[in-house]
Amino acid sequence: MTAPLVGIIMGSRSDWPVMEHAAQMLDRLGVPYEAKVVSAHRTPQRLYEYASGAEARGLKLIIAGAGGAAHLPGMAASMTNLPVLGVPVAVTALNGQDSLLSIVQMPGGIPVGTLAIGKPGAINAGIFAASILALSDPALRDRVAALRAEQTASVPESPV
Amino acid sequence: MTAPLVGIIMGSRSDWPVMEHAAQMLDRLGVPYEAKVVSAHRTPQRLYEYASGAEARGLKLIIAGAGGAAHLPGMAASMTNLPVLGVPVAVTALNGQDSLLSIVQMPGGIPVGTLAIGKPGAINAGIFAASILALSDPALRDRVAALRAEQTASVPESPV
Amino acid sequence: MTAPLVGIIMGSRSDWPVMEHAAQMLDRLGVPYEAKVVSAHRTPQRLYEYASGAEARGLKLIIAGAGGAAHLPGMAASMTNLPVLGVPVAVTALNGQDSLLSIVQMPGGIPVGTLAIGKPGAINAGIFAASILALSDPALRDRVAALRAEQTASVPESPV
Amino acid sequence: MTAPLVGIIMGSRSDWPVMEHAAQMLDRLGVPYEAKVVSAHRTPQRLYEYASGAEARGLKLIIAGAGGAAHLPGMAASMTNLPVLGVPVAVTALNGQDSLLSIVQMPGGIPVGTLAIGKPGAINAGIFAASILALSDPALRDRVAALRAEQTASVPESPV
Amino acid sequence: MTAPLVGIIMGSRSDWPVMEHAAQMLDRLGVPYEAKVVSAHRTPQRLYEYASGAEARGLKLIIAGAGGAAHLPGMAASMTNLPVLGVPVAVTALNGQDSLLSIVQMPGGIPVGTLAIGKPGAINAGIFAASILALSDPALRDRVAALRAEQTASVPESPV
Amino acid sequence: MTAPLVGIIMGSRSDWPVMEHAAQMLDRLGVPYEAKVVSAHRTPQRLYEYASGAEARGLKLIIAGAGGAAHLPGMAASMTNLPVLGVPVAVTALNGQDSLLSIVQMPGGIPVGTLAIGKPGAINAGIFAASILALSDPALRDRVAALRAEQTASVPESPV
Amino acid sequence: MTAPLVGIIMGSRSDWPVMEHAAQMLDRLGVPYEAKVVSAHRTPQRLYEYASGAEARGLKLIIAGAGGAAHLPGMAASMTNLPVLGVPVAVTALNGQDSLLSIVQMPGGIPVGTLAIGKPGAINAGIFAASILALSDPALRDRVAALRAEQTASVPESPV
Amino acid sequence: MTAPLVGIIMGSRSDWPVMEHAAQMLDRLGVPYEAKVVSAHRTPQRLYEYASGAEARGLKLIIAGAGGAAHLPGMAASMTNLPVLGVPVAVTALNGQDSLLSIVQMPGGIPVGTLAIGKPGAINAGIFAASILALSDPALRDRVAALRAEQTASVPESPV
Repeated sequence: MTAPLVGIIMGSRSDWPVMEHAAQMLDRLGVPYEAKVVSAHRTPQRLYEYASGAEARGLKLIIAGAGGAAHLPGMAASMTNLPVLGVPVAVTALNGQDSLLSIVQMPGGIPVGTLAIGKPGAINAGIFAASILALSDPALRDRVAALRAEQTASVPESPV
Repeated sequence: MTAPLVGIIMGSRSDWPVMEHAAQMLDRLGVPYEAKVVSAHRTPQRLYEYASGAEARGLKLIIAGAGGAAHLPGMAASMTNLPVLGVPVAVTALNGQDSLLSIVQMPGGIPVGTLAIGKPGAINAGIFAASILALSDPALRDRVAALRAEQTASVPESPV
Repeated sequence: MTAPLVGIIMGSRSDWPVMEHAAQMLDRLGVPYEAKVVSAHRTPQRLYEYASGAEARGLKLIIAGAGGAAHLPGMAASMTNLPVLGVPVAVTALNGQDSLLSIVQMPGGIPVGTLAIGKPGAINAGIFAASILALSDPALRDRVAALRAEQTASVPESPV
Repeated sequence: MTAPLVGIIMGSRSDWPVMEHAAQMLDRLGVPYEAKVVSAHRTPQRLYEYASGAEARGLKLIIAGAGGAAHLPGMAASMTNLPVLGVPVAVTALNGQDSLLSIVQMPGGIPVGTLAIGKPGAINAGIFAASILALSDPALRDRVAALRAEQTASVPESPV
Repeated sequence: MTAPLVGIIMGSRSDWPVMEHAAQMLDRLGVPYEAKVVSAHRTPQRLYEYASGAEARGLKLIIAGAGGAAHLPGMAASMTNLPVLGVPVAVTALNGQDSLLSIVQMPGGIPVGTLAIGKPGAINAGIFAASILALSDPALRDRVAALRAEQTASVPESPV
Repeated sequence: MTAPLVGIIMGSRSDWPVMEHAAQMLDRLGVPYEAKVVSAHRTPQRLYEYASGAEARGLKLIIAGAGGAAHLPGMAASMTNLPVLGVPVAVTALNGQDSLLSIVQMPGGIPVGTLAIGKPGAINAGIFAASILALSDPALRDRVAALRAEQTASVPESPV
Repeated sequence: MTAPLVGIIMGSRSDWPVMEHAAQMLDRLGVPYEAKVVSAHRTPQRLYEYASGAEARGLKLIIAGAGGAAHLPGMAASMTNLPVLGVPVAVTALNGQDSLLSIVQMPGGIPVGTLAIGKPGAINAGIFAASILALSDPALRDRVAALRAEQTASVPESPV
Repeated sequence: MTAPLVGIIMGSRSDWPVMEHAAQMLDRLGVPYEAKVVSAHRTPQRLYEYASGAEARGLKLIIAGAGGAAHLPGMAASMTNLPVLGVPVAVTALNGQDSLLSIVQMPGGIPVGTLAIGKPGAINAGIFAASILALSDPALRDRVAALRAEQTASVPESPV
């Protein structure tokens, strides 16, 4: 079994229906990953251990999804030097506007690469992670290129 | 010298021109406090130590001010059972809307009592902290009542 | 029967499905409370009597939930020196953005500790109230700590 | 000296540079008025007395200007059956969006006729008040009509 | 049969489910009214005739409801000196935010007294119209007062 | 002297510093135009005459700029079958968001082709008008193509 | 068979239920068109070929509909001198606000005539296109005029 | 001279005062880069050549900054499989909200890792790019770690 290169974390089990799209994309592209629930607010100690230990455990990057006052991506980024991708999940009355701003508006010094709200963002987190790892993995680069070509080919000409 | 009962923390020295209004209000009401810079993103370890040790050090509550993706109040709240008050500071192009949502939209389980954006919020954090401490301090209750009465008396009748 | 320490008020019976989460949390934490409908707009006299008499009746703090142009929390705060917590309820076409701003943007001098829009905010109002009362009630402090520990323990590791 | 028909109230002296435009318009249209500072939050008792006594004192309508969590117009409306006009004043980081929503989003049962944010809204509150009073005052109706005709005539054809 | 004092107009038949709440309130308060579809955009000539002829036909005020780029209230106001009330109707993807701003942000010189988005705003337009007409109709003033008293009495004490 | 093909109208003289950019672009592209102040709210009759007579006077399209509750473009469109372009001007506390929504959110049946807020929108209204007229004017098509080519050529490679 | 004058393009087949309203309107007005799926992001090469070749193929204008980060209209406009109309489609959690801003806020130099979000915008794109083509096609001008007259005639007087 | 690994592109020279912060960070971290003006709208051909040729030229990733309807990052991403980072620049009346949404709300399939609006986002794009390249460059990893440690050390304890 291959050791995971990507850690997918999310603030709550209820984020999984969104975040599983990141997992499915990594599966499709052949990138080993792990998926965990890590709540910034309810399990800050688990977050600390997860993020600060990620690099030593061999992870190359972290995908973090969260809703509402979505602190998980930014706090993970504060505790690791690995690239952290953030996916806003729409779970509150504000429909993801709160989580988008909580994730993207990080201060200078601690970046979070933020994707779109919800499912498109989760899909894209998977692709983006793969395109990063592909920089030093020619076979993965080919698989990413094939996915992109397939996407292009799958767009029909006619709308009906 | 009296031990501080309130910890005022802020993500950056540049938040002090806003947060000092909380300090001034606590001074005026005779509530001992301390003021520290604790960055959720640049000094997560300092935040962990500050928040998780606050209760043992005798603090009764924390006032946390932050701008942008303002994670400080919520993350402090995740590491202590003391009441945490949050003050959004307007430092980005979004003028505090981002920090307001990052602070107030906490998930069920970890509350942050949020005040208004900027100076009015900092003033009110000081008063709110005092009104909490006044619940078991009759002399402070009298000082809060006097402040409120003075505020009422200071409203002129005529606008000019 | 124990005298209530917390007054939960709301602008309309239709706010109860949200605000009962505050009540349930206080029940769980063993904090005696009362729950009343007090409309700032339709029953301003009732509000005046409720808020200005709250301290004398032995209440320690007020939780106020309201939607739309949500004036209840701020007006209650204007008539008592007790801490007032505000919970925005999403009842209009603007889905709680109006009530959030109406509650949180109080002017300097009259604080309302504002929680998140809707159910998470009501849950957190209950916890926040308990954490305030726990400052002078060690047994309650232990119950709050137990709740928080239980919350932490209840977060599963695996998302599926 | 003529008894005032319109009561202009505002939450703070700092609202006067906006609200004086309502006063100037009433002056110009020959409508007697009074202008007072009445803070919903700092002087709730003064508000109660002002609003609930307005009709008996001979006022015909109230113009209320306020910023931030602008509760003054709605609370005045809750305590009188006279028509209440509301003018949002931009005083916070949110530039009047908060006060607009706090004023206009009143629940069914207690109306506030809301005008635009800031100076245009204050001017229009004066005209609107006059157009209401003009319904039973033919001379005032003529003055309003003259103002409107003058406005029309004053629009130049050429932009330069 | 009594001549109408209030003209309720709306941009489309699809606005009626909202605007009928204004009509019902006027029925309840005994204020004679008429209700018409007048589209600012599809029937500008009808609007011109309606608004510019309203005063001569004996109308005392106009209630205009519209959605999207809601120009009806403001354009009616531009063609009459009668008071015009505006009710934003939520019909687009922006859920009434567009119509609220299109109605309330009138330039200095041409006021529209704006009510809340949707049903509460329509109810309140009816009450506000009645409170205006009540200024010179003591019997109506009593009916408005009775409605308001009834509203107050109908607020239950207990939320359950 | 050539008869104007484009009518540039604006709600107020104060819109000219924005709208003159449309005029300058038409000058540059050799498209004859006229520029007038026409206020939807203060001069509805002038608007009626202008818009309903535009086609007969030989105009081919109308560029309308307005701020706040910007009704001018939509109302012009309601009274002519010529294409109408709308330019939101930022004049209120809401910085053009109100005028953008008032102009673009037209109901099905009456289109306004909306450009960006402010100066870029005015420039683009000029270019867009020219590109429309160029459909039946090969010389103008060449001038538009030349402008576009010049724009492309003028982009430097290096940012410094 | 008539060569198409209007090219309707959209970023995805899922935009067709909105964009078909543009097609239906062109059908009704007798304007020949073609409809294609062209994704700015998945098929940039197809977009390049489509847009840069449109004029040579005899198209007179392009209607482009897109959702989310809606780049299709602006990018089409960057590669042709033909007029481009943009229709924001509401497909994300932000309900069309993102696509509206992505389409309308074009920089000076490259205009996109933007219509309302969703179905009304698609309908209006069809009418706007026809009104542009009608400038040099008197028979089409008559059909547009007839449509507009029919729209006016179809507005009922009574709301019920 | 070292071949560039990162391509910094921006839509206009006026974006440089923001985007130079990305360049300065890459300088500081010893990452070779190039900086170019590439306008999605005015120079689409240059964009096509730049983005589609980037990988072959040895670039590892692209940082794209843009304002308004900010299409540059997303369109670059559509034409390369390299990771693309997007920086919203606040240049319009909407102060970066338009560019944030235009950049981040990409559809599933074509990711853009989005950073904060303005200077903090540009700084973070530089750090994020370095942290990606550091995955296969231990010396760079050490320099990133040193920067992060220095950032942590530079946070003062006292706010004054």
